[in-house]
Amino acid sequence: MARYLLRIEYHGGGFAGWQRQNNALTVQQVLEEALVKIDPAAPTVTGAGRTDSGVHALGQMAHVDLERDWSEPRRLRNAMNAHLRQHPVSVINAWSVAETFHARFDAIERQYRYRIICRPAPPSVEQGLVWHLPWPLNASAMAEAARSLIGHHDFTTFRSAHCQASSPLRTLDALEIEADGERIEVVARARSFLHRQVRSMIGTLERVGAGAWSVADVAKVLQACDRSACGPVAPPEGLYLEYVRYP
Amino acid sequence: MARYLLRIEYHGGGFAGWQRQNNALTVQQVLEEALVKIDPAAPTVTGAGRTDSGVHALGQMAHVDLERDWSEPRRLRNAMNAHLRQHPVSVINAWSVAETFHARFDAIERQYRYRIICRPAPPSVEQGLVWHLPWPLNASAMAEAARSLIGHHDFTTFRSAHCQASSPLRTLDALEIEADGERIEVVARARSFLHRQVRSMIGTLERVGAGAWSVADVAKVLQACDRSACGPVAPPEGLYLEYVRYP
Repeated sequence: MARYLLRIEYHGGGFAGWQRQNNALTVQQVLEEALVKIDPAAPTVTGAGRTDSGVHALGQMAHVDLERDWSEPRRLRNAMNAHLRQHPVSVINAWSVAETFHARFDAIERQYRYRIICRPAPPSVEQGLVWHLPWPLNASAMAEAARSLIGHHDFTTFRSAHCQASSPLRTLDALEIEADGERIEVVARARSFLHRQVRSMIGTLERVGAGAWSVADVAKVLQACDRSACGPVAPPEGLYLEYVRYP
Repeated sequence: MARYLLRIEYHGGGFAGWQRQNNALTVQQVLEEALVKIDPAAPTVTGAGRTDSGVHALGQMAHVDLERDWSEPRRLRNAMNAHLRQHPVSVINAWSVAETFHARFDAIERQYRYRIICRPAPPSVEQGLVWHLPWPLNASAMAEAARSLIGHHDFTTFRSAHCQASSPLRTLDALEIEADGERIEVVARARSFLHRQVRSMIGTLERVGAGAWSVADVAKVLQACDRSACGPVAPPEGLYLEYVRYP
């Protein structure tokens, strides 16, 4: 057996998220079904994180143990892509790694990007790829509010009720607002995130940008450590797992 | 009757192009069917240009004569978008214009953008939105070759056999290559283009970028004024009508 690390891109629109389920199509299942056709081990694919239903990935990472030896891992990538053609999932790269390497536990940084388009007309070319808001957002108010979330905090307010992490404490390294005309992108970077944390923060920042909440409200709801104090959760179609970093 | 100018965005993937046809769904038809629901005139929508099957638009322009008076044209835009929900077509803006204004004949500049991604893995998030090439392209060779196409020329080589224009003479104002890692975008700007001219030029430049053709070959095939000398026509999914300009 030898372990391989895969960098994976997917359009989350047609999937019930990353994690295998009994009654809905997931990205993990599609990858494992592609691997069954090229490796006798019928391997399990272990992702760096579980993206939710509808969330996209530009750089999800996953490891897998294979019986066949791929001295040229790019051939593994090409073979997988040949079997993934029917799905909006592709293996961008593959590397041989040590048998002790773990895609989830060895990750030291994850970056998400969230894309918003603010204009009256709904998106057509980017349908399903951005969060459409028919009102403008004040990007500098959002950036100011975002600064109160950066750092080491109890993120209970921004954590799904279904979150399985043992602690609500996380260190948010960056939460940056990039504004360009009618487009706003939010970049969130941390060692790890709680379940729904990014979309919960984005939904709250949107309320500030729309003028419904003040900048100070965001610090207050963070300190409340109360899920019911959170703003609405932003929809999945704007969210991209951009990369996962290893030492 | 009053004339309105519309700026329209669409994902070309599901359409047999702009122009109405008897047996296939087109963008013009979808727009006219939306207008029938809000105006008694059952109006014809006249586009600035006819995009081919599968070609996208970020800024197609079209005019239409309506019986109803829209003193606030943004309400016309919103009403149309409400009836366009089932299709990847949206009206970005609407303006009231003079009855003599013509979306096609008054246009003084059209800009197209062509998006290419060069990497082994097929695109998943951007499936249908870029031309995927599994080999790298030499962007500076492409830029050098592009310069020989700029200016006033007989573009017979780069014109479809079905082109209905009376003259093959056109003035190409810009043909710029923008390279960013594995992505290449080509911007083409002119008062007007011949049928398939942009995709014919892109397909030819791709051959130069791939190293199959020399830079000098492009000037030679232009001078040949012979359709059979053209490179392969690039596929529609990478092409976007970006904007149309009026005086």
